[in-house]
Amino acid sequence: MNIAKQVVCLGGGTGTFTVLRGLKQYPHLHLSSIVTMSDSGGSTGKLRNDLRVLPPGDVRQSLIALSEEDDLMQQIFTYRFEEGDLRGHNLGNIILVGLEKITGSFQAAVNKVSDLLAIRGKVIPVTLQKTDLVAELEDGELIFGETNIDEPSYNGQIKIKRVFLSPKVQANEDAILALHQADMIVIGPGDLYTSIIPNLLVVGVPEAFQKTAAMVVYIANLMTKYGQTDGMTAVQHVTLLERYLGRKVDVVLWNTRKLPQQALKKYAAEKEFPVQKGVFPRRIQVIEGDFLSDDAIEKSKADPLKRSLIRHSSQKLAGQLYTLLYG
Amino acid sequence: MNIAKQVVCLGGGTGTFTVLRGLKQYPHLHLSSIVTMSDSGGSTGKLRNDLRVLPPGDVRQSLIALSEEDDLMQQIFTYRFEEGDLRGHNLGNIILVGLEKITGSFQAAVNKVSDLLAIRGKVIPVTLQKTDLVAELEDGELIFGETNIDEPSYNGQIKIKRVFLSPKVQANEDAILALHQADMIVIGPGDLYTSIIPNLLVVGVPEAFQKTAAMVVYIANLMTKYGQTDGMTAVQHVTLLERYLGRKVDVVLWNTRKLPQQALKKYAAEKEFPVQKGVFPRRIQVIEGDFLSDDAIEKSKADPLKRSLIRHSSQKLAGQLYTLLYG
Repeated sequence: MNIAKQVVCLGGGTGTFTVLRGLKQYPHLHLSSIVTMSDSGGSTGKLRNDLRVLPPGDVRQSLIALSEEDDLMQQIFTYRFEEGDLRGHNLGNIILVGLEKITGSFQAAVNKVSDLLAIRGKVIPVTLQKTDLVAELEDGELIFGETNIDEPSYNGQIKIKRVFLSPKVQANEDAILALHQADMIVIGPGDLYTSIIPNLLVVGVPEAFQKTAAMVVYIANLMTKYGQTDGMTAVQHVTLLERYLGRKVDVVLWNTRKLPQQALKKYAAEKEFPVQKGVFPRRIQVIEGDFLSDDAIEKSKADPLKRSLIRHSSQKLAGQLYTLLYG
Repeated sequence: MNIAKQVVCLGGGTGTFTVLRGLKQYPHLHLSSIVTMSDSGGSTGKLRNDLRVLPPGDVRQSLIALSEEDDLMQQIFTYRFEEGDLRGHNLGNIILVGLEKITGSFQAAVNKVSDLLAIRGKVIPVTLQKTDLVAELEDGELIFGETNIDEPSYNGQIKIKRVFLSPKVQANEDAILALHQADMIVIGPGDLYTSIIPNLLVVGVPEAFQKTAAMVVYIANLMTKYGQTDGMTAVQHVTLLERYLGRKVDVVLWNTRKLPQQALKKYAAEKEFPVQKGVFPRRIQVIEGDFLSDDAIEKSKADPLKRSLIRHSSQKLAGQLYTLLYG
C-alpha cells in the first residue's frame, strides 16, 4: 500500500474543480484546495457589495468538488434561483454568506459547510481579509475588480502589464502551512490573471512557494483567454507564472490530443484560440498526453449546435498526477 | 417505564413552537406537528409570489422546534438577512424553497431539512396543494390572503363572519394518518383565524377529528388578537373552534397567573387585551394553573422599556400535557 501524500491545488475556478474531482478518487491522497478571494462578479459580487462579506463563489466550488455527501446536498450548493428577489443568486453562496453573518467568521462558515458537504480534505481561502484585484494595462489604465478584468469592457487589445491586490492582504496561515507540508502543488488549469495569480499576490504565498520542498506542477490551459492571455504560448504562460511565483515550475502537463473542431469555432467567435506550446527550456519536465475530456468531445459530435466546452478530463489529469507522485 | 404515546400539535405559529419545544423534553413521546399552509406574509409571501412555491415559514418554525442539531444549524434556519437583494428573507425559508425547486416537491424539501436539523418527530404540512385564506367580514367584504387578515388594513372593528380557503384543497395523507393514530391532539395556543382554523378548512381534517379516539386539548390564548378575536372570552374561542372542528373539545388549559402589568400596557397600545375566561360548560375539563413564561416576566422587570412578550411557558404546558397523558 502507498503511503499518504499531501496534494495542494491552487486556483479557484472550474479548472481547480476538475482537478479536485479527479484526485478525490484516490483515497490515500490528502487534498487541500487554496482558493482566490478576489472574485467580484455575479452572485458573489452582489453579495459582497450588499452584505460586506468575503466572496463565497470559488470556495463553494471547491467545497462541492470535495464533497462526499449525496447528490441532493451537492445540488443545494449548486442551485441558482431564476426569479424574484433571489434571481441570479446561488443557494450555496447565500448559505455561506448567511453563516458568515451568523458566526462573524468566514472561516467558521467554511468549516460548517465542510461538515454539511462531508468534504474529504480541506478548502482554504488564500486570505481572510477583504481585497480587490486591480490590473494595470500597458497604456497605464487601471482596471478595478476581478469581474471587470475577466470580462473586459475596456479595449481587450491592450495587454495587461501587471496585476496587484488593493489593499495588500496577508495569507491565511492554513494556506502557508498547506504549502509547506505539500508533496505536490498543482497550479491550474485556469485563467492566469483572474484565477491563478491572485493567489500569488497575497503576502506570504510566494515566500511559501520559495521554501516548500513540494513538486510544483502547472497544468497548461487549452485555450487563450481574451483580454488576458491572447496569443500567449504555454511557455509564455509558465514564464508569467514564474514571475509571480518567484521560483521555477518543475513539471508542466501538456495536452496533445486534437481539440474538437466544432467547439473551436464557437471559441473563435469569442476571440479565444488554442494555446500553442512554444519551446520549453530543458529544466522543465513537460509531460505530454491526452488530457482532454471525452465527454465534451462526444457532446460536440452528438449536437453540434449545443455549446460544447473544451475541457480537461478529471480522470486523465488525476491519473497522471498520481503517477508523478508515486512513480 | 411509560409506554410511547403519540401527540399531534396543530397550528403553525409561535404557540405551536412553544408547545413542541416543551414536549420534546419527553423522549418517549412521538411528536407530530401539523402546520398551516396558507401563510402569505413577509419573506414567505414574497417567495410564494416570486417563485410559485408552497409557503415555507410555518413548516420551518416547527422544524426548528423539533431540531436536535447544534445551535449553529438551528441558527441557519432562523437567520434573517438585513440588507441588499436578500433583505427581509429568512435563510431557512430560502433553503426550503430552493429544495422545493431542486426536487420539484415540497415534501422532499421538508424531508431533507428534517434530516439536516435532525428533528425528533415529524413536521406535516396540512396540505401539499396551493391555496389562500379568505375572510368574509360581517358586512360582506372579502379579505384575501392570510397576511391581510393577520394585520388588518381594513376597519378592524368589523368582525370576521367566517374564513375559507380558495381554492379548496385536500389534506396531506400524513396529516390524516397522524390525527387517526394520535393519543392526544394539542390545538394552539395561536391566532384562531390565521394559525389554527386554516388547518380545519382543509378537506379531510374535520372528518379526521370527528373519527379520532385522541383526547383533544385546546390551550387557551392569553391575549385577544386585534381584528380577529376582540372581546372574545376563552369560552367563545372554544365555541368558534368547535364549529370548525365539527366536534367537541375535551380539555382546555387555562392560565391563572397574573399577566405582567408593564407588558399589558404595550399590548393595549396595539388594541390587544387579556382574554377573559367566561363560563365553561361542564362537559369540558378545564385545567387551571400557572402556564406563564417566567422569562418574559423577568425580562419585563429588568428592562421595562424593552418589549416584553406575554408568552406561555414551554415547560409548564408540556408538564401539564404529560400529566394528562400518563395520569
